[in-house]
Amino acid sequence: MSGENQVIENLRQAEILKLSRRAGVSSAIGDDTAIWRPRPGFETLLSCDWFLEGSHFLPERHRPDSVGWKCLARAVSDIAAMGGTPRCFLLSLALPKDRAGRWLDEFVKGLKAASRALNCPIAGGDTTRRDEVLINIAVVGESRRGFAVSRTGARAGDAIFVSGRLGEAEYGLRHIRARPGPPNLRDPLLRKHLYPRPRLALGAWLASQKLASAMMDLSDGLSTDLLRLCAASKVGSEVQAARVPTIRLATYDRTKLDPLALALHGGDDYELLFTVRQEKVAQIPRSKAGIPLTLIGHITSGRRMLLIDETSEPSPLEPKGWDPFRA
Amino acid sequence: MSGENQVIENLRQAEILKLSRRAGVSSAIGDDTAIWRPRPGFETLLSCDWFLEGSHFLPERHRPDSVGWKCLARAVSDIAAMGGTPRCFLLSLALPKDRAGRWLDEFVKGLKAASRALNCPIAGGDTTRRDEVLINIAVVGESRRGFAVSRTGARAGDAIFVSGRLGEAEYGLRHIRARPGPPNLRDPLLRKHLYPRPRLALGAWLASQKLASAMMDLSDGLSTDLLRLCAASKVGSEVQAARVPTIRLATYDRTKLDPLALALHGGDDYELLFTVRQEKVAQIPRSKAGIPLTLIGHITSGRRMLLIDETSEPSPLEPKGWDPFRA
Repeated sequence: MSGENQVIENLRQAEILKLSRRAGVSSAIGDDTAIWRPRPGFETLLSCDWFLEGSHFLPERHRPDSVGWKCLARAVSDIAAMGGTPRCFLLSLALPKDRAGRWLDEFVKGLKAASRALNCPIAGGDTTRRDEVLINIAVVGESRRGFAVSRTGARAGDAIFVSGRLGEAEYGLRHIRARPGPPNLRDPLLRKHLYPRPRLALGAWLASQKLASAMMDLSDGLSTDLLRLCAASKVGSEVQAARVPTIRLATYDRTKLDPLALALHGGDDYELLFTVRQEKVAQIPRSKAGIPLTLIGHITSGRRMLLIDETSEPSPLEPKGWDPFRA
Repeated sequence: MSGENQVIENLRQAEILKLSRRAGVSSAIGDDTAIWRPRPGFETLLSCDWFLEGSHFLPERHRPDSVGWKCLARAVSDIAAMGGTPRCFLLSLALPKDRAGRWLDEFVKGLKAASRALNCPIAGGDTTRRDEVLINIAVVGESRRGFAVSRTGARAGDAIFVSGRLGEAEYGLRHIRARPGPPNLRDPLLRKHLYPRPRLALGAWLASQKLASAMMDLSDGLSTDLLRLCAASKVGSEVQAARVPTIRLATYDRTKLDPLALALHGGDDYELLFTVRQEKVAQIPRSKAGIPLTLIGHITSGRRMLLIDETSEPSPLEPKGWDPFRA
């Protein structure tokens, strides 16, 4: 058995493939190509995401099971953002020799847990040797024909909503970076950073009810992602600073962190950002399945991005979220 | 416009997206998720491939347009190996800052040429910054229900065929490594290494006629790939050394290279390796659309891999092709 086959064997033994067979994916890992049977009346959603050592996770701070969970969860979040359902994924994994043992076992454990929780089995992949861990996940999802929500449909006057509280994952990252030793996994803000849960049920509900005119997930921070949504829809926006749902820092270090800055610019929340026509705003509940849904502003016809603070003049909302290509 | 959007804009301006719209891929680059409409009666084929600086190409020896062509061509070759038709692909690209200009332009030129030649438009992707060029391509293809050929169907007695001549790409790689300066692009062996052409028409024909009982593409060398096919089919094989179609070294350096070793262990040929039931062997022509089809041996019921040389005892055919995980 060749070395490449050994990595594949490791995945096989983790029984991660059982999930694939149940989902009707026929070739799965071992063949170069997987066969998947799309359902009639559905469109196929395709998305891929990098997850790279040093860029997206820190080998000495992030547990391998969290790396396994998160690489899949964030890719599936792109499917949630269209209102779709994930169906299967491809794993491209490049590994250093010294991670092929215990590290890989733990990684697969986290990946398998996410695969189960998100009902998204592995369909195949490609493995190679590299001096750093490189991960790429391609997710295949589906959506009933004509129901997928893109980021291009926002119109002037639409209300802007977000799910959950923003800045939680960024807080978790800062916490983990600042404190040596293993993280306290019972801390919900750390869990949100380490084991994010894409808003699949919420996205699917908004899409099926035709409530969202545009939608995307918050992966790089509200200020950066809202700019992308507005650019795609060729509109502008006004966000009310006081309405943005921030983390409650009562039990945390109040002196150093600004909850609003965390919420506006912090990445990795994987909450949903969506717009709703005025006549449908009343149909959006305050929360859905325990997840708060908050109206934070409105779409405008100009192309300006404004932050409205009751105590001062409106100021430009600058994209200060995560962008790998900025400076 | 953010930095990430600038890379996307570069792809947009290259008009690579025009091809996508024509193929019915609706979101394409710019959205995180693409929408693709599968045809009824077809199965979806999914495959992904790494193409990494230093591992799969050498930045100082491989022109960026060849990198662009080859990253897509080799991924599409996995679809050819199932007898399928490529429909669209996702590009994950990590780039150093100093490659975002001319290098990227040339890369996109090669990628676009391959996209056109292989009729496989881009559907989306993910871009990020990195200190080395990292590429991952996920290809989506399709195949009429029940016609895809996997590597598991070989049975004892089946004839083993290969397309083309083997070792050509390996020769090209050695040539490029050994000689400084720009490669002579009119040399067909160098072209095969730099701009491989997956055997799409041949694969589709073999699948549609139900002639191949098992099939895969030769990416890592015959000795390594045949072992994989045999392992997947739980069989063994006997290859006749004298029948293996090698390169003709008449015009090349005869002293240093062994054409048979190049053919058995050289990678990157992207020719097809397929097995055919005895009763169908007569239906395989000597060549198809100019590509030679050569019977090189037989599948056996044991699990041994043998190389038969008329002048000596049979010897084990050891997998000495490219395997990133071997030592």
